[in-house]
Amino acid sequence: AVEAACVPAGVTEFIGTARGHTIGLVIANVEPRLHEKMGIDKRFRSIGIISDRIGAGPQIMAADEAVKATNTEIVSVELPRDTEGGAGHGCLIVFGAEDVSDARRAVEVTLKDLDRTFGDVWGNEVGYLELQYTARASYCLNKALGAPLGRAFGLILGAPAGIGLVMCDTALKAAEVEPFAYCSPSKGTSLTNECFIMVTGDSGAVRQSIISAREVGLKLLHSMGGKPQTSTVSYI
Amino acid sequence: AVEAACVPAGVTEFIGTARGHTIGLVIANVEPRLHEKMGIDKRFRSIGIISDRIGAGPQIMAADEAVKATNTEIVSVELPRDTEGGAGHGCLIVFGAEDVSDARRAVEVTLKDLDRTFGDVWGNEVGYLELQYTARASYCLNKALGAPLGRAFGLILGAPAGIGLVMCDTALKAAEVEPFAYCSPSKGTSLTNECFIMVTGDSGAVRQSIISAREVGLKLLHSMGGKPQTSTVSYI
Amino acid sequence: AVEAACVPAGVTEFIGTARGHTIGLVIANVEPRLHEKMGIDKRFRSIGIISDRIGAGPQIMAADEAVKATNTEIVSVELPRDTEGGAGHGCLIVFGAEDVSDARRAVEVTLKDLDRTFGDVWGNEVGYLELQYTARASYCLNKALGAPLGRAFGLILGAPAGIGLVMCDTALKAAEVEPFAYCSPSKGTSLTNECFIMVTGDSGAVRQSIISAREVGLKLLHSMGGKPQTSTVSYI
Repeated sequence: AVEAACVPAGVTEFIGTARGHTIGLVIANVEPRLHEKMGIDKRFRSIGIISDRIGAGPQIMAADEAVKATNTEIVSVELPRDTEGGAGHGCLIVFGAEDVSDARRAVEVTLKDLDRTFGDVWGNEVGYLELQYTARASYCLNKALGAPLGRAFGLILGAPAGIGLVMCDTALKAAEVEPFAYCSPSKGTSLTNECFIMVTGDSGAVRQSIISAREVGLKLLHSMGGKPQTSTVSYI
Repeated sequence: AVEAACVPAGVTEFIGTARGHTIGLVIANVEPRLHEKMGIDKRFRSIGIISDRIGAGPQIMAADEAVKATNTEIVSVELPRDTEGGAGHGCLIVFGAEDVSDARRAVEVTLKDLDRTFGDVWGNEVGYLELQYTARASYCLNKALGAPLGRAFGLILGAPAGIGLVMCDTALKAAEVEPFAYCSPSKGTSLTNECFIMVTGDSGAVRQSIISAREVGLKLLHSMGGKPQTSTVSYI
Repeated sequence: AVEAACVPAGVTEFIGTARGHTIGLVIANVEPRLHEKMGIDKRFRSIGIISDRIGAGPQIMAADEAVKATNTEIVSVELPRDTEGGAGHGCLIVFGAEDVSDARRAVEVTLKDLDRTFGDVWGNEVGYLELQYTARASYCLNKALGAPLGRAFGLILGAPAGIGLVMCDTALKAAEVEPFAYCSPSKGTSLTNECFIMVTGDSGAVRQSIISAREVGLKLLHSMGGKPQTSTVSYI
């Protein structure tokens, strides 16, 4: 029922699309009154935009790589209640740049990295798990989720929320990691049906904690429906 | 899979249904303790109700015409996170009236006007745009969205939010309009996946700004999926 | 398209699943740092978990019976915006217990009682009604919804919200009941498309008020789509 999508002719803002119903856009020269209403630092004439309906973690992880690789800053990360009727978030990330080529590059890097960062989103018709890992968190993870800069970062998340809660417990029992935030439907989420924990610490321990939680989460989610699948390839 | 809907026998509150899964209802004489809990002005014995699952803008625009045409006031406008798994809002509008015939009339006018006000809601399987225009905003637009009374009003909205953001920029560059509000997933929405701007100014400029943003928005939304369609007929 | 769900091997936390995409879990010995982040009373080493995507009322009602029947307390009740694209909530309930067998028992009782408590959830493709009744509210209804302990309790709810509003009015006109809360999309809900009222009083009056509201609600919901059905058997 889906017609082929098209590259829009004559829309200079368009960069590309990617999985998760994600679109990448650039505004070379933001209109001054919009710039002001958005509260953007005056230095950044140009902005890069990542917007999607399915997922927030994969886009934030990919943008974190982009901000490492380009001369941009993260202006804002907003998390609508979305996933197209699913249990979680969508995402709107805005990069600021003094030069439009930097904004464009940041958006391109993000779109390209999504194949990787969707690798440990495992879902079935009832819910999903999301696991994310990096050895060194950068400015997007810091801005969006409070991750300590330059340190290992792990996200352990399950939906519906009860599965996430058991995964959090498993993750902390599995390895000596440091949990810096615990979120649930009424705390730290946009009223989503998720529980998750974010951890830092020794990078080996962070990975171990994620892998243990994933194993339990996959079994629990399977108990509610089909065998959970990833849409790309697991990277952790 | 949808059975034929029916006109409910013996339910005096029922007025009718309309597109957007909208129902129109009237309570001739609101039960006193409910009246108090709702915080309604004592003058209004009767209330008219517009409630829907898909859309808020079209219902607010139509109710704005209704409040111009009838002896009613807008008591409240509430915007659930809805659209049946889509990216946006549903709506609950309550009209207050001293006489039940006024409340009834306001609901009837609103239901009838929805064919028009859905005219510039353009959607595909990934998201939608919404454009609204009136030469003279009245009490519902003022109460719900802060529109200046008696002046031209334009709404420029896109979902997912990144498309809306580019549309906002385009609208302000296209004509000399005055933006009085900018909303995004975490600001001024019910955590929806939308960005929108609301503008006032010279009525010709407001129209021009809307038309330019619509053109860009349609191309960007098409880049994510099928060709965006309206369910009725564009009116702007 | 749904593969058979499975009982997860070697996951000691798993208790069972039930209607409403509900899962029941137990953690015998919550990891101390998670315990602290969740803000649970130190006495409760063990927790029972009820988590679902569809519905909050049925799970809360069933957990209310469970807390009467077991040596547990309700630690928290959280209500995500969910129902898988529907108009309402999901739910995450956490029981605290000093002994894991108590936590397990509370979860088992809740899962089993859901066939009953879904009995007066009536839906079609557009919305739903929910009616709940107990002669004696206990600690879960008290914690989650503010119901007076030990007294009769009635919940009268409709979605989309306008139908709920008319049901609230009908309920209060039908019998001498005491409304202790009125909730709507922007007040007392997680931005859902629902209006509901909660009542207490003489148990016969509470039942009468629910039954009258249900009759009107069923007719109004039918006016928007198919004949509303319950997935189990009405109990009120």
